[in-house]
Amino acid sequence: MRTFFHLWLSPVARKIRLILREKGLDFDPVIERVWERRPEFMALNPAAEVPVLIEADGRVLSDGTAIQEYLEEAYPDKPLIYGDVHQRAEIRRLVGWFDQKFNREVTANLVEEKVGKRLLGQGQPNSQAMKAGYANIHYHLDYIAYLMDRRRYLAGEEFSLADITAATHLSCLDYLGDVPWEGHEGARDWYARVKSRPSFRPLLADRVPGIAPVQHYDDLDF
Amino acid sequence: MRTFFHLWLSPVARKIRLILREKGLDFDPVIERVWERRPEFMALNPAAEVPVLIEADGRVLSDGTAIQEYLEEAYPDKPLIYGDVHQRAEIRRLVGWFDQKFNREVTANLVEEKVGKRLLGQGQPNSQAMKAGYANIHYHLDYIAYLMDRRRYLAGEEFSLADITAATHLSCLDYLGDVPWEGHEGARDWYARVKSRPSFRPLLADRVPGIAPVQHYDDLDF
Repeated sequence: MRTFFHLWLSPVARKIRLILREKGLDFDPVIERVWERRPEFMALNPAAEVPVLIEADGRVLSDGTAIQEYLEEAYPDKPLIYGDVHQRAEIRRLVGWFDQKFNREVTANLVEEKVGKRLLGQGQPNSQAMKAGYANIHYHLDYIAYLMDRRRYLAGEEFSLADITAATHLSCLDYLGDVPWEGHEGARDWYARVKSRPSFRPLLADRVPGIAPVQHYDDLDF
Repeated sequence: MRTFFHLWLSPVARKIRLILREKGLDFDPVIERVWERRPEFMALNPAAEVPVLIEADGRVLSDGTAIQEYLEEAYPDKPLIYGDVHQRAEIRRLVGWFDQKFNREVTANLVEEKVGKRLLGQGQPNSQAMKAGYANIHYHLDYIAYLMDRRRYLAGEEFSLADITAATHLSCLDYLGDVPWEGHEGARDWYARVKSRPSFRPLLADRVPGIAPVQHYDDLDF
């Protein structure tokens, strides 16, 4: 059986959990408190970060992008990066959009400030960062709606890693009640479709110790 | 002919320039002052970031990781992500190490503070960030030396995208004289080998307006 080290509200670890489930690959999820810098974990990944995947044969994989590409190459049956080279580039462009740009402009300013600092005992969240996060998210929700006016899924006609990546960031923010769904119906309709996939269920069951989710977090009809 | 939009000390744009040269793909390099938010450029990449590649047939590609994977798929002849799925995952793990971890711990603290802020007119660099960058770089240089004690190149026996990625970050820092080569001979020997590749020459000819490089920047025998 595979072992998968993750943290509750790590978008990139959530991305890999969704990929594993979408591809029907079984795994034992293990919470790794990376800030404890366990020597056994550091030996698996000297970067001391989740996600880390241990395959059934003991091979170790780390780094979100490296694992995502590995899973596509090793288990190509249900592709999440599909199509010709240009379609594939469009999927990866949007994966980068959410894992880099959205993460920097929104997720880091809200999830890391509110949850990361608390778990690490680093004091109060920075109110300026939070203000920036709340302001920036509207533009990204508009971009999702813009894409959904033109396509069935974010990167094209099929569900892909772009939908997974965007949804994992939004799911972390939604746990905290930080997604202003009102006024963003296009983004909400798309998220409701992704959220209702069976692969998403374990994410909706996540509970961060000491931090309850908003009431609609696991509601498929939010 | 391809057109490639970049900035002088953008490690990820340097990465794509090196991939294009290593694969023997011709392109016209164009400096894009992204902070001017040119409408024509925003239409190419709504993220308003370099790198952006326009293929000879007019197809547009953006996002560093998306372009790197596209170039491997579209031009597989001289692979820079080589080997079986585990070798390929090891290459991408190290690409992630430098583009994410090293970037966050070192490059952002030094290159963005010293050069980015100056180009953008954002005032003085943050001295605490710079201090962190100067402290963090030693550990990464040690990691390069550790890998070079065990392998011919960073990710294995062949030159790969891992070497390219690490070298682009170090080349930006080296321009500013911010790499403490003394005491890090293992990392220096590896960098000297990468720096002497013909693909590296155009990077060594880069000059940021108003900021001269250190004397040894383009010296192959530094």
